[in-house]
Amino acid sequence: MQRSLQLATTAAGYVAPNPMVGAVLVHEGRIIGEGYHQQYGGPHAEVHCVNSVKAADRHLIPQSVMYVSLEPCAHFGKTPPCADLIIANKIPQVVIGCRDPFKQVDGKGVEKLQAAGVQVTLGVLEQESRVLNKRFITFHTQHRPYIILKWAQTANGKMAGEPGGERLLISNEFTNRLVHKWRSEESAILVGTNTALFDDPSLTTRLWKGANPVRLVVDMNLRLPSSLQLFNKQVKTIVFNSLQHEEQGNLLYYQVTQDVNLVHQVVHALYQLKVLSVLVEGGAQLLQSFIDEGLWDEMRIITSNELVVRQGLPAPRVHSGELLKQESLLSDTLHYFVNPQTLVR
Amino acid sequence: MQRSLQLATTAAGYVAPNPMVGAVLVHEGRIIGEGYHQQYGGPHAEVHCVNSVKAADRHLIPQSVMYVSLEPCAHFGKTPPCADLIIANKIPQVVIGCRDPFKQVDGKGVEKLQAAGVQVTLGVLEQESRVLNKRFITFHTQHRPYIILKWAQTANGKMAGEPGGERLLISNEFTNRLVHKWRSEESAILVGTNTALFDDPSLTTRLWKGANPVRLVVDMNLRLPSSLQLFNKQVKTIVFNSLQHEEQGNLLYYQVTQDVNLVHQVVHALYQLKVLSVLVEGGAQLLQSFIDEGLWDEMRIITSNELVVRQGLPAPRVHSGELLKQESLLSDTLHYFVNPQTLVR
Repeated sequence: MQRSLQLATTAAGYVAPNPMVGAVLVHEGRIIGEGYHQQYGGPHAEVHCVNSVKAADRHLIPQSVMYVSLEPCAHFGKTPPCADLIIANKIPQVVIGCRDPFKQVDGKGVEKLQAAGVQVTLGVLEQESRVLNKRFITFHTQHRPYIILKWAQTANGKMAGEPGGERLLISNEFTNRLVHKWRSEESAILVGTNTALFDDPSLTTRLWKGANPVRLVVDMNLRLPSSLQLFNKQVKTIVFNSLQHEEQGNLLYYQVTQDVNLVHQVVHALYQLKVLSVLVEGGAQLLQSFIDEGLWDEMRIITSNELVVRQGLPAPRVHSGELLKQESLLSDTLHYFVNPQTLVR
Repeated sequence: MQRSLQLATTAAGYVAPNPMVGAVLVHEGRIIGEGYHQQYGGPHAEVHCVNSVKAADRHLIPQSVMYVSLEPCAHFGKTPPCADLIIANKIPQVVIGCRDPFKQVDGKGVEKLQAAGVQVTLGVLEQESRVLNKRFITFHTQHRPYIILKWAQTANGKMAGEPGGERLLISNEFTNRLVHKWRSEESAILVGTNTALFDDPSLTTRLWKGANPVRLVVDMNLRLPSSLQLFNKQVKTIVFNSLQHEEQGNLLYYQVTQDVNLVHQVVHALYQLKVLSVLVEGGAQLLQSFIDEGLWDEMRIITSNELVVRQGLPAPRVHSGELLKQESLLSDTLHYFVNPQTLVR
């Protein structure tokens, strides 16, 4: 099962909105097949695993055990049901990491296998299997994306310099590269109006490999100039606003309503748009709204050990959070928090 | 406070998305002023109350107590803050039914009054005050509309006759009129594709007075014929579908996504559209989805005592529910259930 999880992880950033899944076929202690879900829409882990078995070993399949990190599917999606594949290949025993919360599976895969006489063990390395797919599981059980809040602050807790002043570069180049890696792991990145206006970020993963997440910006009254990098149409971008609902190429104007809690509307919209996870990168006001609503799963705070600014915008106030990990990257200290209310941890 | 609640109720169906509020001004045991929030966008209860005081009694205002069913507002919305009005009129004491959960008020009204030296008592007939505004409170704290499920079933638990057969008329004419009253109390009515197609309902309140709620219909692949009464454009209508997002007069095509839980998407959309409450009228499949997701606050089941049909579509399966009330209307029995998980009850 450890190997299945390891295989699954290989596809991080490539399979959303599908889950990451790995599968291993073992005959009397020897691995005869391995596979993982590599790409959204492509074959599932179980298919790759069965196909990987060498011709000389194929006769061993009906005496082997399949270890798979997530419950095999029981429905026709973009590919046929994996439960059927297991049954057709006469695999007598299946060990599963965790149940698939997706409505069309959700126990039906296990039922189908058992009905066909396959011996099923559920819940081996269950927590690890769930954490691996924390985004997918949160999406399907909480009906919202997995939410990660991220910001950089000076040693004295400021997020930006004086209003209207120059952009404050807080984190060092190693941390910046790490942030691009974080971006590549999520489906979307969100920023508020002032951050878009004053920092003019491009919100890409140019310092790392991997696909660019969807860019999200709040611009209630559509006052942001079209000259901003966010509007260069090179990456799919969604503009949450109160004035129009319209699609222009890969630029989507998504209408929300004034006087209705904004962050809930944004999170609802991402569910509807099938966006599994979002990295919220600022500014302070938007981050604070997510914190105040308890709408977050992880928080990653970068603190410069050296930089002190006299005046500036204070970082968000955090009400609760469990410190998961702390690490140093030269002049920066990184704190990783998890929300005590978070389902999958 | 009883009188404040009574006054507030007068406006049921006219003030959404605002809350229903009543206010009474009492001088030494005598009511000298009364008011209630009558219409969305119009003056609040406190304003009507103060204005209703006769010229001869106006000098008594600074020695009176105001009883108001909901916390006075502290912000500039469509009208100025009521807390300011109370302070300007030197009303020394205010008794409040319950706190206003709306983010821009939410305790700020009480704070403002207290800061100005007004004596405030909070929580008198609190439960009644909350139940009065169950829709408003649910909307602002749960970030979804208040959801009422309703259906009619035969004595042997069938909701409709054989598929493709004639429309089964289950409830009697008195119950039908009551259903129109129920409709007039909610902001929207929702039906599924098959109900729209086979029953061709107009979903209006023609058998009762009051405004027509917004009509909502699910039509994922836009296969419903435009000849249906739902599409007559006489009432604002929203069509949840997977193909387009477009507004045509008072017909809004609202795009949702396949393979993402539909009822959650619908409920999210209603939050975004500022729809405070919804009456779900069927069919069985749609009602079952709401029940299975635990997404409901009240259930009203009409059972005909006489009608038995041999074959037909079974009514939804209910997992849990607390019987609140049972009543008879000639041949029909009405069961009112409340969800044990519901916040405001």
